[in-house]
Amino acid sequence: MHPVILCGGGGTRLWPVSRNSFPKPFLPLLGDRTLFQQSIDRVSDPNRFAAPTVVAGEAHSSLVASQASGDVRIVIEPCARNTAAAIALAAHTLPPDDIMLVCPSDHHISNVDAFHSSVFAASRLASQDWLVSLAIEPTGPATGYGYLQTGDPLTGGHRIAKFVEKPDLETAKQFLASGQFKWNAGIFAFRAGFLLKELNRHRPEMAALVEKSIDNGQNTETSFRPAAAPLEKITGESIDYAVMENTSRAAMVGADMGWSDIGDWDSLAKTICDANDGLGKEGNLARGPADFLECNDVLAFSDGPRISVIGLDNVCVVVNGDEVLVTSRDKAQMVGKLPGALFQGEA
Amino acid sequence: MHPVILCGGGGTRLWPVSRNSFPKPFLPLLGDRTLFQQSIDRVSDPNRFAAPTVVAGEAHSSLVASQASGDVRIVIEPCARNTAAAIALAAHTLPPDDIMLVCPSDHHISNVDAFHSSVFAASRLASQDWLVSLAIEPTGPATGYGYLQTGDPLTGGHRIAKFVEKPDLETAKQFLASGQFKWNAGIFAFRAGFLLKELNRHRPEMAALVEKSIDNGQNTETSFRPAAAPLEKITGESIDYAVMENTSRAAMVGADMGWSDIGDWDSLAKTICDANDGLGKEGNLARGPADFLECNDVLAFSDGPRISVIGLDNVCVVVNGDEVLVTSRDKAQMVGKLPGALFQGEA
Repeated sequence: MHPVILCGGGGTRLWPVSRNSFPKPFLPLLGDRTLFQQSIDRVSDPNRFAAPTVVAGEAHSSLVASQASGDVRIVIEPCARNTAAAIALAAHTLPPDDIMLVCPSDHHISNVDAFHSSVFAASRLASQDWLVSLAIEPTGPATGYGYLQTGDPLTGGHRIAKFVEKPDLETAKQFLASGQFKWNAGIFAFRAGFLLKELNRHRPEMAALVEKSIDNGQNTETSFRPAAAPLEKITGESIDYAVMENTSRAAMVGADMGWSDIGDWDSLAKTICDANDGLGKEGNLARGPADFLECNDVLAFSDGPRISVIGLDNVCVVVNGDEVLVTSRDKAQMVGKLPGALFQGEA
Repeated sequence: MHPVILCGGGGTRLWPVSRNSFPKPFLPLLGDRTLFQQSIDRVSDPNRFAAPTVVAGEAHSSLVASQASGDVRIVIEPCARNTAAAIALAAHTLPPDDIMLVCPSDHHISNVDAFHSSVFAASRLASQDWLVSLAIEPTGPATGYGYLQTGDPLTGGHRIAKFVEKPDLETAKQFLASGQFKWNAGIFAFRAGFLLKELNRHRPEMAALVEKSIDNGQNTETSFRPAAAPLEKITGESIDYAVMENTSRAAMVGADMGWSDIGDWDSLAKTICDANDGLGKEGNLARGPADFLECNDVLAFSDGPRISVIGLDNVCVVVNGDEVLVTSRDKAQMVGKLPGALFQGEA
């Protein structure tokens, strides 16, 4: 199985720590190793996985090279065109009959054994030409995720009956109550050749442009650089939108593996809490120097200055360089709308 | 009338901006001039006031000298022994029949004309050997102030029937409802000689030690340094506790002058708001770079870094050097209990 690690995400949701020039995958947010390194670590057993392929933008290729240890091949995207194009580029670099395991580089998975179990169930379905998505049991009526509706059973999984992207709260509550809907984790398994075939069927124009970009690409010893001109003509689409929602071969495999996309500061705080048995009864968390008086469930995250907090509940305080963020945890997803996150100087 | 400006306060209530080494009176918290400078400005009309005497500790005498313009005499306290001793030291340096006007250096008064009216009413009573305290109409059931109960009427004021220091909330509410109680602003007028006579009557030991400290003091061109040894033996007491509560000559004069002691960040925020007609409808206030999303009544106070706040109401965020404070406004009075405020390095 060939791991393909996608490093395309921007740097706004965990701003100001994550910035466009140094985005979330490359930060040690949980433990000493960065999320990208942990993504590599999860697929590093040579008995189970081939050496990983990493897809990243030009701006981050040196971060990839410096953080990845061991045998890694980098596909350097000349421009970002969302996941369908990124996955198709990687697929072209692999033997068509091999199974690729596509993983985001900025998620957290606390139970790696469970991840492996699900991945191998997914690979068995992928070898029968299913396009498989790992499906997470929802823990709440989240409105920021894509949902997968469970369809007819398959060996080790199910068909996907329906895709629903970011439902409203009412719908999300109904999904949760029904027990039929799972979260789409953005982790996929498919045969490289079959993925390209299905892309060609549902997005022939994109498939052709990807092929042209590959044909005119440049190889170096450790990286492959697809040609920019054809890629730039592509309208960026997610793999879900371009392929998964259209194919008749979409399948899902349940994954109960302590998954989090660490999509905002609230999510990071929860993930740190879950990992932290030694948490005080007030639920306050400090990375860097911090003091709390009459606080509950406050996350203080500092790169140096001391953070002192009084009389607040469910708040994140983040100090990074010349930026200080204070957000209620339930509105942490709005961070990307701040001027500081929106108008970041070029790296 | 001789203004006597007291600069004895510590630096914890507006920490981290106010620090022991650079406390609140010497900071430009409202407008361009510091609270100390504004205190001097209020008593600078030579037709009404003599040149002021400033009482300050050794550590702050250079701040006084650098911030005071014009003719100022400094009494440098070798050690801090609360207001009774500070006022007595100053009283000894003035002609006994002259009236001294004692003012804290770290309060805000928005209506200076009203201040002058009250001060002159107070001086008329002081010339008849009343010890006069300015009395502020309470705007809420504050538990952090001393209260004065209105007694029998005098010309331009009243006797003080009773002193109550920092009542509990229930009592403060009763005081407010009764209409009889006013806040003790810590602004006093009395004849210098009469104050010393009353101190001698009620605290003879302190009076003797102050006299000894004066007799062995050192004069320079612009300052007077009382002797340390006698002063160090004094048990520090407020002028209220040592004299005002014991004398039969305590009087009060109402002062409706937009007074605030700026006793914590909440109080500073309110004072800035009151001064600021151009405040947005959300009531957010920024000193330094700041952005707000879905916030109300948030104060952001920074010496450089940008402060971004999301989804919070009634919060103060203060960034100063290597310290970041985030406090709910209703618990801002707890700032002094933070380790950062308690354990400040020596200046």
